Amino acid sequence: MLGLMQEWPLLCHKILDHAATQHGVREIVSRSIEGPIVRTTYAQTRARALKLSARLEQEGLGLGDRVATLAWNTGRHLECWYGTMGIGAVYHTLNPRLFPEQIAWIMNHAEDRLVFTDLTFLPLLEKIAPGVKSLEKVVVLTDNAHVPATSLSNAVAYEEWLAEAPGDFVWKDFPESTAAGMCYTSGTTGDPKGVVYSHRSNVLHGMIAAMPDAMGISARDTVLPVVPMFHANAWGLAQAAPMVGAKLVMPGGKMDGASIYELLETEKVTFSAAVPTVWMMLLQYLEDTGKKLPHLNKVVIGGAACPPMLMRKFQDNYGVEVIHAWGMTEMSPLGTLCVMKPQHAELEDDVRMAVKQKQGFPPFGVEMKVTDDNDRDLPWDGKTFGRLKVRGPAVASSYYGGAGAEQFSPGGWFDTGDVAHIDADGYMQITDRAKDVIKSGGEWISTIELENLAVGHSEIAEAAVIGIYHQKWGERPLLVVVKKPGQDPSKAEILAYLHGKVAKWWMPDDVAFVDEIPHTATGKILKTKLREQFKGHRLPSDAGL
Amino acid sequence: MLGLMQEWPLLCHKILDHAATQHGVREIVSRSIEGPIVRTTYAQTRARALKLSARLEQEGLGLGDRVATLAWNTGRHLECWYGTMGIGAVYHTLNPRLFPEQIAWIMNHAEDRLVFTDLTFLPLLEKIAPGVKSLEKVVVLTDNAHVPATSLSNAVAYEEWLAEAPGDFVWKDFPESTAAGMCYTSGTTGDPKGVVYSHRSNVLHGMIAAMPDAMGISARDTVLPVVPMFHANAWGLAQAAPMVGAKLVMPGGKMDGASIYELLETEKVTFSAAVPTVWMMLLQYLEDTGKKLPHLNKVVIGGAACPPMLMRKFQDNYGVEVIHAWGMTEMSPLGTLCVMKPQHAELEDDVRMAVKQKQGFPPFGVEMKVTDDNDRDLPWDGKTFGRLKVRGPAVASSYYGGAGAEQFSPGGWFDTGDVAHIDADGYMQITDRAKDVIKSGGEWISTIELENLAVGHSEIAEAAVIGIYHQKWGERPLLVVVKKPGQDPSKAEILAYLHGKVAKWWMPDDVAFVDEIPHTATGKILKTKLREQFKGHRLPSDAGL
Repeated sequence: MLGLMQEWPLLCHKILDHAATQHGVREIVSRSIEGPIVRTTYAQTRARALKLSARLEQEGLGLGDRVATLAWNTGRHLECWYGTMGIGAVYHTLNPRLFPEQIAWIMNHAEDRLVFTDLTFLPLLEKIAPGVKSLEKVVVLTDNAHVPATSLSNAVAYEEWLAEAPGDFVWKDFPESTAAGMCYTSGTTGDPKGVVYSHRSNVLHGMIAAMPDAMGISARDTVLPVVPMFHANAWGLAQAAPMVGAKLVMPGGKMDGASIYELLETEKVTFSAAVPTVWMMLLQYLEDTGKKLPHLNKVVIGGAACPPMLMRKFQDNYGVEVIHAWGMTEMSPLGTLCVMKPQHAELEDDVRMAVKQKQGFPPFGVEMKVTDDNDRDLPWDGKTFGRLKVRGPAVASSYYGGAGAEQFSPGGWFDTGDVAHIDADGYMQITDRAKDVIKSGGEWISTIELENLAVGHSEIAEAAVIGIYHQKWGERPLLVVVKKPGQDPSKAEILAYLHGKVAKWWMPDDVAFVDEIPHTATGKILKTKLREQFKGHRLPSDAGL
Repeated sequence: MLGLMQEWPLLCHKILDHAATQHGVREIVSRSIEGPIVRTTYAQTRARALKLSARLEQEGLGLGDRVATLAWNTGRHLECWYGTMGIGAVYHTLNPRLFPEQIAWIMNHAEDRLVFTDLTFLPLLEKIAPGVKSLEKVVVLTDNAHVPATSLSNAVAYEEWLAEAPGDFVWKDFPESTAAGMCYTSGTTGDPKGVVYSHRSNVLHGMIAAMPDAMGISARDTVLPVVPMFHANAWGLAQAAPMVGAKLVMPGGKMDGASIYELLETEKVTFSAAVPTVWMMLLQYLEDTGKKLPHLNKVVIGGAACPPMLMRKFQDNYGVEVIHAWGMTEMSPLGTLCVMKPQHAELEDDVRMAVKQKQGFPPFGVEMKVTDDNDRDLPWDGKTFGRLKVRGPAVASSYYGGAGAEQFSPGGWFDTGDVAHIDADGYMQITDRAKDVIKSGGEWISTIELENLAVGHSEIAEAAVIGIYHQKWGERPLLVVVKKPGQDPSKAEILAYLHGKVAKWWMPDDVAFVDEIPHTATGKILKTKLREQFKGHRLPSDAGL
């Protein structure tokens, strides 16, 4: 027996329709790439997105065609998304921080037919575009007056291009399982892998993101997504904010402390989301200038573990609630958020702060578990760590083209590649990446925990831990260290410092000093390269053959 | 091109899985029908719901079978719902306030095979059950010790029946379009009509209900649904509360002021929802005893228009935020909620209060419009009223068995049968029922507005307005009045009182005095009967043939 409820497919343009109808006057304020602050509204954005749909169709694009964006967070970028989705085409966000050859590879793999680009990235695109065979047109997100001379013969200015759109347009109709957007992960190993969001997953994820125990935003909020739209849907805010009718403030290309502060202050921002680096820059600016944050209520911090000091200062010095969050491109991206449950209400401040350092618990719509290598469930005791696996309507079922199939199990669980433990209250904490964790005699050692401890040493600038082959144990930890300028700690001093802070069998078997630790384009430690570098390293503890 | 996201059908038991996994210790506190306060948790409720699924299957019930409930809000009622849905069977809530012959008609129409009943309703069921051909079993929601002697040969006590369930059980799998629940509207005209919720609509509606600008509930809330589960899913709280892990407080059969106050106080309830009558009783109790409401933050009031005085007292005397809401059984039921938008922030208190008297605006997932009789859209100007039509994933597409097909249009819009206007901010206000509105010379007159005005007269106890045939205008308003005891206002006095308060052409053409105005079982004015009663009434203004 079927329910007798309306067919109302979860399509992304319905989000914008709702925003325009119920919150049409609400503003979208952007720091434009050209410079000035620009104001538009949800009603205007819908009208322009409809024009853009019409214009794309006029260009011969339609259902399933990939339309790339290489752009900062602005109102224009938002209307490009909705206009693209409105004809069933697929917005494909490119991360400008990747190496040019990676971007070119991704565009070729996705077979992007058109790209919307900010002025900022025109030089980059001049290098890349000629090598992207599928690319027919480059639309520069500005007007004719601002487009510089370019070597790209197929480049046009957005405003004038958009103005050529024919009149009235109605969103196309298609099933909710239709692809809506695409985003490639910047894997540290192997080629980038494409995640393909559907209309259904984007709408459900937007709803999940807006819920009180997730972002918890309403029509009375002013939302500043510092996290870029090219980072997995700006963590869902590009859907959640219009869905609830929140005012949007878009930072364009300026994420320094002074620029972010200016927007927080003049637009009375109540909610924001960004990676720790952005907040570190803002705090530095606030401390330098003595300024305060009277309007800001809440920030979500994700993308990397949030330093305790950052959380502390936001809460104690500025009265801003910090929510630690964890997610992945493959999860649209929200996985867990560290909001407090009633059982934490009576905790002392320091104890609660320790809980807030965890990555948190999933909202309805995300399931998680930790398993051993044989896919057996591990206990939720806050210490047994294993492979973190997730399931949900906004979690990837495969990568574009079928790459990385080993991460997907028939039971529907996606192996995140992270190693984590979960406590009895359901709070998850990441302890490592699966490919980095050290397997010593069948037991796992968390490299992240060792690194965090090591950088607590006053003479260490940066630390990385990798596993080195060991005849008896299989692998044992090597601590690789960059000394602070002018400092010269010895191996023995460092090991003595760690002693007693970790289980004895976790202690690094050796310490190596380097001038520099290799990083990825997005700032993560490149452990593959480090392992390559220390391939021949022989641990003093290894008796050898 | 399809998205590459996981198949994760929106099934109701996933709500309970999430509650048990992430909020397993959170309590469900019930005032039991036997008397004492009973405590359980989401983890226990899930375990018992799974047992119930197994037990129903053992009884030979399965996909699509209807399982009725005739019960107050308790933890047991909740586990009956989830256990029923867990095998793809359909919970069918019966409203005990209907006439017995209506309940029997409904049970026969739905072909209920089993009914869960509270002790309270056993006498009622003894009358009805023999006439329900499909009914195989009556399960009384108590234990053997509490079941009285009964004429029903197929009655068993719930606890002992449940204890017979076989061991481990796993929720059944089925598409999200599968029927989950059923609820009949108590139409004032014609037979009751069955609304059939799907798993998809229940899950989406639960998400919509939990959103910050709807109920806005979180894991830190304690929710008291006074609104019965047999009133359209307790307004979605039976899904939304477990979804967010809110503590639930279930009032059982006692809705008087003292009983509700006791639960609000001892359980530190933060959020509640009920019809105005319940809140009137509570306020009376508070005023009689001088008690306060230190824990309660927010109440949602719906089911009937909320008297301004009630809203005022809650806000000013008790610091409780009141949210006016409107919905229908056919809408799962949430339609609109009157939360404030940023444009209302600067309004003076009295002006904002006037806005809060409206029924509000729909959340994402509900679309609405007002049209004239020819389905042409009417302007959103806050005064032009017309037929209110709605659309959404939790709005009915038809009634069970195909009744009332004229309310459903091919474009997907459901005609609510209400007449309303919408203002420029998107706030809807109900002005009448479509079948009651008076059509005078092609223009519409709102009977509700006239009635509200008339009862403002100090000597009028109750008022009803109906249309009477008029040769020239088609229809003209007749005001039917019940005088207050000991009062004797004249027609002329009453008309003089109304004069100047409404447009001249809205003025009733006549006033009739009666001892009593007929009502439905659920307390609404029975205008069909009134129109019957005044069928031959000749208006003084009608020159006749």
